[in-house]
Amino acid sequence: MFCGTQFSIYPMSDDFVDVILGSIGPLQHRDDIRVETDDLSTLVVGTPNAVFTTVRDVYAEACRRGGHVVLSATFSRGCPGEPDDPMCVPEKPAGATASTAQTEVVTPLAIDVAAQYSLYPLGIPSYMDVIYREIAEAKKAACYDRGKNFCTRLKGDLSDVFAVFGRTFESAARETGHVVLTATVSKGSPSQKQGG
Amino acid sequence: MFCGTQFSIYPMSDDFVDVILGSIGPLQHRDDIRVETDDLSTLVVGTPNAVFTTVRDVYAEACRRGGHVVLSATFSRGCPGEPDDPMCVPEKPAGATASTAQTEVVTPLAIDVAAQYSLYPLGIPSYMDVIYREIAEAKKAACYDRGKNFCTRLKGDLSDVFAVFGRTFESAARETGHVVLTATVSKGSPSQKQGG
Repeated sequence: MFCGTQFSIYPMSDDFVDVILGSIGPLQHRDDIRVETDDLSTLVVGTPNAVFTTVRDVYAEACRRGGHVVLSATFSRGCPGEPDDPMCVPEKPAGATASTAQTEVVTPLAIDVAAQYSLYPLGIPSYMDVIYREIAEAKKAACYDRGKNFCTRLKGDLSDVFAVFGRTFESAARETGHVVLTATVSKGSPSQKQGG
Repeated sequence: MFCGTQFSIYPMSDDFVDVILGSIGPLQHRDDIRVETDDLSTLVVGTPNAVFTTVRDVYAEACRRGGHVVLSATFSRGCPGEPDDPMCVPEKPAGATASTAQTEVVTPLAIDVAAQYSLYPLGIPSYMDVIYREIAEAKKAACYDRGKNFCTRLKGDLSDVFAVFGRTFESAARETGHVVLTATVSKGSPSQKQGG
């Protein structure tokens, strides 16, 4: 399996360079993930859990630096065009099951965000069934907001929003080898009060 | 058919509100597209051509206001979850063919950008063949840059970059009813010189 993300942090402020570099800088010292940054995005390759928590924590760090900050990310696993990579295979502790992973306690990050995401299970004619099932599952989450054209809105603590992303991605991956999830997360938008 | 986009403009500057509102404001006066904006993105529904040219022109206007500005967009057509909409059906002039549309002259906008995009043809087991074919086609374009994990990089005039997006989207739509293309376009990044 190959699993990773291309993600970007967009701080809407004149000091955007400091916010971006300060947030992604610590990734260079990690040996459990592979990281490549260019002018458009940062690639993180690793286990699904490592990939999601890394992006969440980088974005949380950018949010703590203040102002209006947006995250845009594409998460992908199982793309047939990418080579298998041992770095992407989770080490399962003895006795671990998918359901224990799903019910793990999420620690709040105290960062309020609005988000929208889309799920693309590829290569199977029944992909809409998977999408509808995952939307139904997301509606049970406290951070579910509403459906929009082409995506689903969430609203709440950053940790809860990422818990939905991770669960959706893992659950869809049981139906098809190649799953893509795209997400936009926004903190501190001045138009948040008027929005949807 | 239903065709549209959710797109966002991210100006990396303190006056981001003015740049965003100044760029998307004129959309409210159009009657050939449907437009809805919230705090996360702007929806545009219309013919494929109207959708792509609208997003391109809004982003061009934001770029002209200066600084580092990023566009993030998800283009979608034929989603089974969306109702058919007459607004999305192109009016074909007599004698028009797909090939004449593909060879139309693209007027340069004199805005240099870097971009990356991903194509998701949904619901068909042969989707990777479509993706590989479209990447091979994109390599013929002068603005082709290189492949990255999960996406393809372009570099050049904004008009040429959008010509590749539009051609890719239209061509993939001949293989499956539901096609999604996600794109990131960046102008004025201070790290562009060091990037990939």
